[in-house]
Amino acid sequence: MSFKKIALAHGAGGSAQNELLKIITSSITEKCYRGGVGLDELDDGGSIPLENIEIVFSADAHTVSPIFFPGGNIGSLAVAGTINDVLMMGARPLAISDTIVVEEGFDTLQLKEILDSMNRVAREAGVSIICGDFKVVPRGKLDQIIISTSGVGIVEKGKIIVDAGLRPGNKIILSGMMGDHGIAILASREGMEFDTKLISDSAPLVDVVNAALAAGKITAMKDPTRGGVAAALNEWAEKSEVSIWIDEESVPIRKEVEGACEMFGMDPFEITCEGCILIGVDDRDAENVLAAIRGTKHGKNASIIGEVRQDHPKKVILKTRIGGHRIIEMPYGEPIPRVC
Amino acid sequence: MSFKKIALAHGAGGSAQNELLKIITSSITEKCYRGGVGLDELDDGGSIPLENIEIVFSADAHTVSPIFFPGGNIGSLAVAGTINDVLMMGARPLAISDTIVVEEGFDTLQLKEILDSMNRVAREAGVSIICGDFKVVPRGKLDQIIISTSGVGIVEKGKIIVDAGLRPGNKIILSGMMGDHGIAILASREGMEFDTKLISDSAPLVDVVNAALAAGKITAMKDPTRGGVAAALNEWAEKSEVSIWIDEESVPIRKEVEGACEMFGMDPFEITCEGCILIGVDDRDAENVLAAIRGTKHGKNASIIGEVRQDHPKKVILKTRIGGHRIIEMPYGEPIPRVC
Repeated sequence: MSFKKIALAHGAGGSAQNELLKIITSSITEKCYRGGVGLDELDDGGSIPLENIEIVFSADAHTVSPIFFPGGNIGSLAVAGTINDVLMMGARPLAISDTIVVEEGFDTLQLKEILDSMNRVAREAGVSIICGDFKVVPRGKLDQIIISTSGVGIVEKGKIIVDAGLRPGNKIILSGMMGDHGIAILASREGMEFDTKLISDSAPLVDVVNAALAAGKITAMKDPTRGGVAAALNEWAEKSEVSIWIDEESVPIRKEVEGACEMFGMDPFEITCEGCILIGVDDRDAENVLAAIRGTKHGKNASIIGEVRQDHPKKVILKTRIGGHRIIEMPYGEPIPRVC
Repeated sequence: MSFKKIALAHGAGGSAQNELLKIITSSITEKCYRGGVGLDELDDGGSIPLENIEIVFSADAHTVSPIFFPGGNIGSLAVAGTINDVLMMGARPLAISDTIVVEEGFDTLQLKEILDSMNRVAREAGVSIICGDFKVVPRGKLDQIIISTSGVGIVEKGKIIVDAGLRPGNKIILSGMMGDHGIAILASREGMEFDTKLISDSAPLVDVVNAALAAGKITAMKDPTRGGVAAALNEWAEKSEVSIWIDEESVPIRKEVEGACEMFGMDPFEITCEGCILIGVDDRDAENVLAAIRGTKHGKNASIIGEVRQDHPKKVILKTRIGGHRIIEMPYGEPIPRVC
């Protein structure tokens, strides 16, 4: 291995994490179930092909800090995030598992509030929380709480949607405002010197995905969490062997998010999103799908932000507001630690 | 709530944990998918009934300390434990998810060793690790590593095995030596003043379960992890509304385990097991099933340890070696913290 100790960047969704994930997936030889989507594809989840259906299976660990933030908490984030991962593969999410590990002395009223939020998100998405585990570690052995969630969904065989599905000519839709979640988390940290009304948009995006799938041919879906839109687009470009051209003018983003990024020297394309998704769609269906998404509760701000081309494969290129072009690189790591 | 802060005992598999789990399950209204086994049944997992099959879904968080111990490590324990939970419901485990959270600075060679062990156990059980997540938290925010695993299996519809399935007349089989795992962990802790060659027996028990299911009518299965055999039997007695009579003389247990329990004033029935399971079996098939289990790699030391009766419902009663009787109570908590 090229490094001896795990660094924060190894869990932060960028190229450092990818290096580590390669080590993980090379250690695991049993990483694919009978031709389904396997661990080494580093997609939103894996799959288990059965006779007529494919089970989609996805897992997330959540270590967000602070655990309560404007717009949600670690529990709502966990359930929404896992539901979204199952949705991203074109599957209907059915059930969630959760494992909760807390530090001795954790406040039970806070635990209750977290559980209530998890339940609320599950109910909104029509998903059940059917199993779980609960562990307590001695005081000082954990910073408050970690929640891991897994999700199970089903999809008709052959209809699974993977990252490698993008085709030249496809349009790229972003279903909501970029970067709200990451900046809301940053602003809620102690010692932060900016004030904003920004709240996390973390939500289960069943409505957006169902509307999109019903309105046209969807070739890829991805929730741009750690590493933000930059990481998600680069993964797509890499796996689909295409270039992705983004028009900065079309990207929905709030003034507060842009302002905060400028203040802290961060690229807004690298900020974690938890309430919007990227959708690749057949050119002919793009306007239809966009209109359908805009008709949903969580998709009002959707926009076509770019397109897929054959030239310059594996590159993501931004057409800037002032008319120039720059490469959107795979970020090294998420600029804000512990954001999900 | 009757308590304001979470204590270690709330995660330790006994009556304190049950109290907390009631709070958790009462917060979650969306806890059952279409008549399947739900969160509030507190079984080894939950289930998702489809047309002809039922998906079994189970989840565990692992915080064992030390993370490397004689006979295994946190990774092998996690994968084996989750595979066993899926097996306990009569399902064939197909795939596992894992989420790994490490502290910044965690040694990559140790991570590699943990991953290799996870892979080895998955291969032995014929299960794939198809999805996961990896997070890093800043130094001091976590004691080394936490691994959460979820498992997915399938079972023919109507063939699921639940804790409430025990019937008067059934025999109880314990498939291996009681308490090896818990005492091996205890002995491997720094500062422990006893020396033993005991190693953890943690293993995926596919062979034992397959042999048992093929040899006779199985009414219930449970892996006696946190809270040990005492907790598992009490849960069975409670849910099946029967009494369970255990013959101490028949319980397979090593001298070292008995000795350690005596030295530390612990009840061996409350010690965590990770390499053996409890099986309820129709009286007429008991000898057949026992012989089949004894023919497997992990079931050589299996023994019929007791039987199920109608009188004294919800009690677990031990016939002691000297001929008396005592109640095996639901433990308050696992006597050894962070054992799995």
